[in-house]
Amino acid sequence: MANSKYEYVKKFELDDRLPPSNWLVVRIDGCSFHRFSAVHEFEKPNDERALNLMNACASAMLEQFPDIVFAYGVSDEYSFILKEATEMFQRRASKILSITVSFFTSVYVMKWKYFFPQKELMYPPSFDGRVVCYPKVKIILDYLAWRQVDCHINNQYNTCFWMLVKSGKTEHEAQQVLKGTQKQEKNDLLFEKFGINYNTLPAIFRKGSCVYREMVEEVGKLDKNGCPVKRTRKKVTVGHFDIIKTEFWREHPYILEEN
Amino acid sequence: MANSKYEYVKKFELDDRLPPSNWLVVRIDGCSFHRFSAVHEFEKPNDERALNLMNACASAMLEQFPDIVFAYGVSDEYSFILKEATEMFQRRASKILSITVSFFTSVYVMKWKYFFPQKELMYPPSFDGRVVCYPKVKIILDYLAWRQVDCHINNQYNTCFWMLVKSGKTEHEAQQVLKGTQKQEKNDLLFEKFGINYNTLPAIFRKGSCVYREMVEEVGKLDKNGCPVKRTRKKVTVGHFDIIKTEFWREHPYILEEN
Amino acid sequence: MANSKYEYVKKFELDDRLPPSNWLVVRIDGCSFHRFSAVHEFEKPNDERALNLMNACASAMLEQFPDIVFAYGVSDEYSFILKEATEMFQRRASKILSITVSFFTSVYVMKWKYFFPQKELMYPPSFDGRVVCYPKVKIILDYLAWRQVDCHINNQYNTCFWMLVKSGKTEHEAQQVLKGTQKQEKNDLLFEKFGINYNTLPAIFRKGSCVYREMVEEVGKLDKNGCPVKRTRKKVTVGHFDIIKTEFWREHPYILEEN
Amino acid sequence: MANSKYEYVKKFELDDRLPPSNWLVVRIDGCSFHRFSAVHEFEKPNDERALNLMNACASAMLEQFPDIVFAYGVSDEYSFILKEATEMFQRRASKILSITVSFFTSVYVMKWKYFFPQKELMYPPSFDGRVVCYPKVKIILDYLAWRQVDCHINNQYNTCFWMLVKSGKTEHEAQQVLKGTQKQEKNDLLFEKFGINYNTLPAIFRKGSCVYREMVEEVGKLDKNGCPVKRTRKKVTVGHFDIIKTEFWREHPYILEEN
Repeated sequence: MANSKYEYVKKFELDDRLPPSNWLVVRIDGCSFHRFSAVHEFEKPNDERALNLMNACASAMLEQFPDIVFAYGVSDEYSFILKEATEMFQRRASKILSITVSFFTSVYVMKWKYFFPQKELMYPPSFDGRVVCYPKVKIILDYLAWRQVDCHINNQYNTCFWMLVKSGKTEHEAQQVLKGTQKQEKNDLLFEKFGINYNTLPAIFRKGSCVYREMVEEVGKLDKNGCPVKRTRKKVTVGHFDIIKTEFWREHPYILEEN
Repeated sequence: MANSKYEYVKKFELDDRLPPSNWLVVRIDGCSFHRFSAVHEFEKPNDERALNLMNACASAMLEQFPDIVFAYGVSDEYSFILKEATEMFQRRASKILSITVSFFTSVYVMKWKYFFPQKELMYPPSFDGRVVCYPKVKIILDYLAWRQVDCHINNQYNTCFWMLVKSGKTEHEAQQVLKGTQKQEKNDLLFEKFGINYNTLPAIFRKGSCVYREMVEEVGKLDKNGCPVKRTRKKVTVGHFDIIKTEFWREHPYILEEN
Repeated sequence: MANSKYEYVKKFELDDRLPPSNWLVVRIDGCSFHRFSAVHEFEKPNDERALNLMNACASAMLEQFPDIVFAYGVSDEYSFILKEATEMFQRRASKILSITVSFFTSVYVMKWKYFFPQKELMYPPSFDGRVVCYPKVKIILDYLAWRQVDCHINNQYNTCFWMLVKSGKTEHEAQQVLKGTQKQEKNDLLFEKFGINYNTLPAIFRKGSCVYREMVEEVGKLDKNGCPVKRTRKKVTVGHFDIIKTEFWREHPYILEEN
Repeated sequence: MANSKYEYVKKFELDDRLPPSNWLVVRIDGCSFHRFSAVHEFEKPNDERALNLMNACASAMLEQFPDIVFAYGVSDEYSFILKEATEMFQRRASKILSITVSFFTSVYVMKWKYFFPQKELMYPPSFDGRVVCYPKVKIILDYLAWRQVDCHINNQYNTCFWMLVKSGKTEHEAQQVLKGTQKQEKNDLLFEKFGINYNTLPAIFRKGSCVYREMVEEVGKLDKNGCPVKRTRKKVTVGHFDIIKTEFWREHPYILEEN
């Protein structure tokens, strides 16, 4: 082969296959979205269009990559759980990471106009990502709980912060008011000062978003007796559940099914 | 911290910093671009619009990431050389890989319409990527030579193949004609059958594309004597050079300057 | 610090901590023990002194490293299981590997004279090693079964092979006789030709050796009523069990206890 | 194969080949040698027998592993440089690390009695180790300089410390005297208090030990004219040189020869 003289450079590519029998999590995070959300005038503390765009990207991911069994998103971040036994891209870390992040980014840019019809993209958004191995399903549940607790803490803080700012405080003053406050104090502040019952705010803000495959029953063609045939299939679905408690998981046991 | 009970899951994130004193190459490659180029009716064997779009993305990369000192592209692939001493993202492999691939993809989708104004994107394109460490500048030169030899071999083959197909042969017949032919035989075939002198085809097809910073002299403001002040600055530039021979590198010694 | 000019070289040492929540297996293997056993005139197919020396080294390992919960050895190889949650040497792969292999080797050389009193060491024996992460206890059981099946296959073959050689065949002829034979045929050959009932050969040859901590009851000092106080403690013990079946594990549930 | 049901466990062994075109350094270090040297009554600040035993082990390493081109030792530590292009054990990190550390340990225990004829080993000594990749010969020189500067700093401190202790100070008092002293002050203290000219202490203490292959000329058989045939061969040699300055390296250019 004419190229053989230089082909030795391929030897520098190291094998990066991830160990078997581990759940893989790809977590994607917006790069410098503080600035991106300011330039594109995202609503504060939560921009529903931006969240819905993220959810649309995540849904596209589950449609594209069958081995993603669950995704959880909050703000400009999304975690994708690949099933324990996945052989996607032979479990090569670089392939899994680069292709998923690239696809997510591609969908984000393509779908932008449907979620922000009045606002053109001012510059290319980008996302970073990482892949992490988790050896037990129990730890995957803790991982997701970690993200949802974070969602709660941040959202409660941000809701207070932006209400204070919108009511006339400077950003610095708002920070001072909130410094050291506990969960209950923040809820009280929202209620007493702004008449907001935190627990009635939209679940998408408080709980983040889950994307998964829901069993749906479909009525198909008629059988030979003229009865419609019912079939179940799995349909990619977005919801805003408590995933720290066990209820959701008990109702969807197939999602984190072990091998 | 309220989240501490679950935070142990962060311990599963391993340190992936790349070793110091190595040049880093990020190579990006279109995923399933065989299909993508068919669906989007790329011209064969080379679609100049598609190549120019790739080059625009690569130029945006050099504008965005100052530590990328050189990029070389061919077909749906691009290699980015990061300088030996780069501390970009603390040399963390996942960060470097995911953010560069994401940014490249984002630019590709955003700029698509300028290069393919008549052809809407039918589905989200994606790219895979990998990062490789090269410990010596000599090996970087061999790496680039490897890619450019590949460009030559593939382009010569594809030029013959598509001329045969356009002249009425089936794809299978074209393959049979070319099987086992040497470089000179392919050039002869092009010349004798189709009157094409391979060496006069556009350099962008034969040599691929180089993106780098060219020293340019600019005429600035007048000085106190009324003379215009000349300054040199580095400008991101696309060219189609032979990078296997030493000439280009002798003329641009600062590109692969070692520490 | 006077040394700071050169201390940058420490940056080339990469972090090699193994992922949490995985059982670690260190497998140690004699280097070129084919030659070593010939030079030191090991008995064939099994040298009990050599096996007992290996077992003494393994026992010393369990005394030295409390996080080794089980060891299994056959021929010139030994596998050590470190408990899932071990923080030995902060789970750094290089430390774990080098120190365990070094300690094992050290004991082997020191204890040699007690097992081979007539035979001085002719040259320094050495062992290679590797560390492997196993994410589930089920896979550790399969790992151990893998080694014990290997022990059985090799021992049965070697027993036949050396009986044939001792009975006058050349090594090549012995190989030819055994080529393609099944388990039962090998047992038949041993019985019919040599009057050997394979299943009555010593368990140390057929089953390999297990080293673990056995609960033992000890009679201690008298209590105030003059009754001896019984206490249980764990004592490093060598045995030759079937570890493929579940019996041994059911009787020693604490060995592979999960966190 | 009868074993195939369990053989999947081999998939958990990851490929750990080190990148090509890097010098490899294996650094070996005594485990808990503070205690080991106390138990075995090493002389303070330097025990020549212990250093000579370390050097004998290092020499055995160069005899055993031809790809080790240089070794540098100080106190209970030794660094072994493997040539840039080594293919020893296919550059697999675990193999290289475990086998070299094991062999070193084995020689240490076997040769102990020749260096400490009056003192039996009280318990098995062990060593830890690590392998580090260095991409340039320049960095290897800095690595060795780093170790030799360390040797100097430690030896000067220890010489003062033990002289103070031997002269009647407690260990704590000796520490207090030395706290914050500079190089020159320490030399002055040695000279003024104890009449010791630091620079005339044995080089093995001040410079550490280098093990390498020296070109030696040998007089061989007579040729047909009756003249003895001279041949040069490389002989493993121990010396105590300054390896921070360039002189040694200029005189032995073949040691760190690049490919």
